[in-house]
Amino acid sequence: MSGELAFIAALRALATHPAARGLADDAAVLEVGSETLVLTHDMMVEGVHTLAGQDAADIAWKLVATNLSDLAAKGAEPLGVLVGYMLGADDARFVAGLGEALAHYRVPLLGGDTTSGPGPRSFGLTAIGRASFTPVPSRSGAQAGDALYLTGPVGAAMIGFEALRDGTGADSTAYRRPVALLAEGRALAPHVSAMMDVSDGLLLDALRLAKASGVTLAIDSAAVPLAAPEERRAKALRWGDDYQLLFTAVEGLALPVPACRIGQVRKAEPSPLLLDGAPLPPDDPLGYQH
Amino acid sequence: MSGELAFIAALRALATHPAARGLADDAAVLEVGSETLVLTHDMMVEGVHTLAGQDAADIAWKLVATNLSDLAAKGAEPLGVLVGYMLGADDARFVAGLGEALAHYRVPLLGGDTTSGPGPRSFGLTAIGRASFTPVPSRSGAQAGDALYLTGPVGAAMIGFEALRDGTGADSTAYRRPVALLAEGRALAPHVSAMMDVSDGLLLDALRLAKASGVTLAIDSAAVPLAAPEERRAKALRWGDDYQLLFTAVEGLALPVPACRIGQVRKAEPSPLLLDGAPLPPDDPLGYQH
Repeated sequence: MSGELAFIAALRALATHPAARGLADDAAVLEVGSETLVLTHDMMVEGVHTLAGQDAADIAWKLVATNLSDLAAKGAEPLGVLVGYMLGADDARFVAGLGEALAHYRVPLLGGDTTSGPGPRSFGLTAIGRASFTPVPSRSGAQAGDALYLTGPVGAAMIGFEALRDGTGADSTAYRRPVALLAEGRALAPHVSAMMDVSDGLLLDALRLAKASGVTLAIDSAAVPLAAPEERRAKALRWGDDYQLLFTAVEGLALPVPACRIGQVRKAEPSPLLLDGAPLPPDDPLGYQH
Repeated sequence: MSGELAFIAALRALATHPAARGLADDAAVLEVGSETLVLTHDMMVEGVHTLAGQDAADIAWKLVATNLSDLAAKGAEPLGVLVGYMLGADDARFVAGLGEALAHYRVPLLGGDTTSGPGPRSFGLTAIGRASFTPVPSRSGAQAGDALYLTGPVGAAMIGFEALRDGTGADSTAYRRPVALLAEGRALAPHVSAMMDVSDGLLLDALRLAKASGVTLAIDSAAVPLAAPEERRAKALRWGDDYQLLFTAVEGLALPVPACRIGQVRKAEPSPLLLDGAPLPPDDPLGYQH
């Protein structure tokens, strides 16, 4: 983990361009002429980001959805994707899932690259979008006094993952076919002070937003909507892959889309994240670090 | 190979957007408002596109240069790159090489993703650029009667590869640190009828240009400039990684950059590629198919 952090720090040091707002964890915003573009790139590795034997159609779908979710958090309209694909036995399934996802989101495949190679395969996808509102929402704009919102429940992906891995009989759709909230992101963009998608776990992503904004976020755990049994609440707050939008806005503002108020933004305190009024223990993973 | 071709065909069928001029082998051109963007994505796999034990700094450099070469062939000015990186023991070297390449080409790192995983690592890079001239040069514009040109010699990467692999004592720079001909591509863009970079071997890439344009290219092998011993000529014409620009232009046109006339464009004949007047045997690999 520390090796990864050092690498990301080194990459960040290279990323001196103002577009590089958050290498390895946030989409880039690029001004070109009169256009404001948003770019994101996510990788998935077989066996790391996927379950053994998982349908390649679902992997392709998720690769599209996770990148489009990054665009959604920027209020961007997707213009296209490029895919990096390592060939395998299930290419037809990958193409099928990719086609379904691109048709669902009405996004064109612009290009990409295919390669062959041994070992676990990896897949990369780049999405490019056009900002619908400027300034483009970022993680760093939360202001003390703002309210903290979440567009929908967490926990559905966790339940879906367990269904797929353990055959629990529960619906695995949320894990296999996550939804990028593009319309919600565009509607929210003019109203939020900060926004991001919850991909690595609500608490971990909230911590990132708090740090980027230089504030403390106080989350009321009972206010977080749950798509899992109540006894799984603590885990659901730390599981990722739900792709809800987490955002801050002026307290009491009328919002254009349904969202749950799950906490508030305070001036920076020693701990950037409070859960039910208390800091989290230093050994709490908060989410999925990768 | 046929599996790959079927996959690429399936991807192409998905790629109905006009920007997708040539999935998996050509950069995409995307109109956004008044801007014309060029996007490209290349992947490299350890042990497939690299030599065992190769310096990660050279791998990073090449990843940048190969993508920027795709932009060069479109006459585009690079705006930035996104990198997909699998962590390893040599992250510091990768960062060093990436930094050198980005500084050399004055291109910012916009963002990307890092992952961990077992097995041979793969690396992806997306480059985005802005067209300096429209219509953006493509592979499909060659006209019967045009002349065929190459910006410089082939064979240097082959010699460099052998130097690195076998310790021949020759200079390995051309293989390790290829050069993207960005200035040349921009200068040529207004003058060419078709253009591409020679990444997979002169003959194979010439065949692609011929097929895309619906013409026959007649190459005079003795006219191809060589950066290898004369007895290696046949091999050098089929080796890749030299990243020269291959282009067609009206016969006799004054060119803005030095280039060698290596052949001519003819109306489509049964064979789209002639070498010294004769078609190539069906089992001739022509270059590096991947």
